Amino acid sequence: MADTPILKIADKVPEPTLRRLPWYLSNAKLMRERGEKYVSSTQISRQINIDASQVAKDLSYVKIAGRTRVGYEIDALIKVLEDFLGFTNMHKAYLFGVGSLGGALLRDTGLQHFGLEIVGAFDINPQLVGQEINGIPIYHSDEFEEKMKAGDVNIGVLTVPINIAQEITDKMVAGGIKAVWNFTPFRIRVPENIVVQNTSLYAHLAVMFNRLNFNQE
Amino acid sequence: MADTPILKIADKVPEPTLRRLPWYLSNAKLMRERGEKYVSSTQISRQINIDASQVAKDLSYVKIAGRTRVGYEIDALIKVLEDFLGFTNMHKAYLFGVGSLGGALLRDTGLQHFGLEIVGAFDINPQLVGQEINGIPIYHSDEFEEKMKAGDVNIGVLTVPINIAQEITDKMVAGGIKAVWNFTPFRIRVPENIVVQNTSLYAHLAVMFNRLNFNQE
Repeated sequence: MADTPILKIADKVPEPTLRRLPWYLSNAKLMRERGEKYVSSTQISRQINIDASQVAKDLSYVKIAGRTRVGYEIDALIKVLEDFLGFTNMHKAYLFGVGSLGGALLRDTGLQHFGLEIVGAFDINPQLVGQEINGIPIYHSDEFEEKMKAGDVNIGVLTVPINIAQEITDKMVAGGIKAVWNFTPFRIRVPENIVVQNTSLYAHLAVMFNRLNFNQE
Repeated sequence: MADTPILKIADKVPEPTLRRLPWYLSNAKLMRERGEKYVSSTQISRQINIDASQVAKDLSYVKIAGRTRVGYEIDALIKVLEDFLGFTNMHKAYLFGVGSLGGALLRDTGLQHFGLEIVGAFDINPQLVGQEINGIPIYHSDEFEEKMKAGDVNIGVLTVPINIAQEITDKMVAGGIKAVWNFTPFRIRVPENIVVQNTSLYAHLAVMFNRLNFNQE
């Protein structure tokens, strides 16, 4: 245990904090729109209904100093939060599987404002290969290894059918992808050094339906 | 505390369980495709790398009995899971805000296979109002209350800009919406009896970027 890399562990921000920080960011943007110049963690706390000490603790991960009584300067807070969350740095990604959801994500220009640029997509459907959606070229899946040689893409967005989810993941990882954004309801397995972010819209639907039925009983 | 509705509380399935059940479902579908007839919790456990006792515990919430040694009948397991998760029951929803992400969700036909039917959308953009996307009509936001009188919609999908997220949520709730699927990075506030499911793609991006940077350091 003596050689545990303490500094690296300190850099690993807890996931709940990372999920709350975008709330503070959107709140700060809203206040700037209203003409405010400063915001305190107490104000943020009141507006989004999260304990003030939690807000202050979360914000302690980002390197910004508040001033006594006035709080954080809003412009600076927005800038620091956007940088910290990785939204100002463009991260290039490939998307795998241009079905209904994959096509929808290619059309969502909002992702770019949060640091994700999908620079290409892969599919095997001859009606899609060679086409573009929203200016993003669709290549044949066999071209993936060749395309990866450019070396500037390290994120893969997974929107394939579940029966090939693992196979495509393995291909991605072999090709050099370091993070998989998994939109399938399939639990993919990856080597330890590969990041997986699961975003299953269907799992979220299941939670919502259950709570709705529960409330209506 | 004497009149706590114990049975209702028992019906409230823990969120982690609800998030894992779709994994078991997709795994069972995959095994059916491969020609299997039975699956045990041990098999599921091995395939998706979740502790077998956890799988068995999660599956104890859905009313299905496994048989000693052979496990669960796959067809029955799929049927019961789909019913339990609400995917076989069509839930009608309205979508609010036909921007980039909202438009993308209207085009995602996959949601229908998981029990969500978006039957209409609202916006104020004159170039959108009166149009259809994927067969789904776009109405002016002012028409919402009138449309709600049909009485068969109780879910609202929120994809508006953050500066009107709270205002539109309040309108939805006043109109009779019982569950809000919030795709905005804004933390909305609702009365206690209203269900909120947050699905912030941007928060998920933030987590992924942070983990990726951490691994690359």
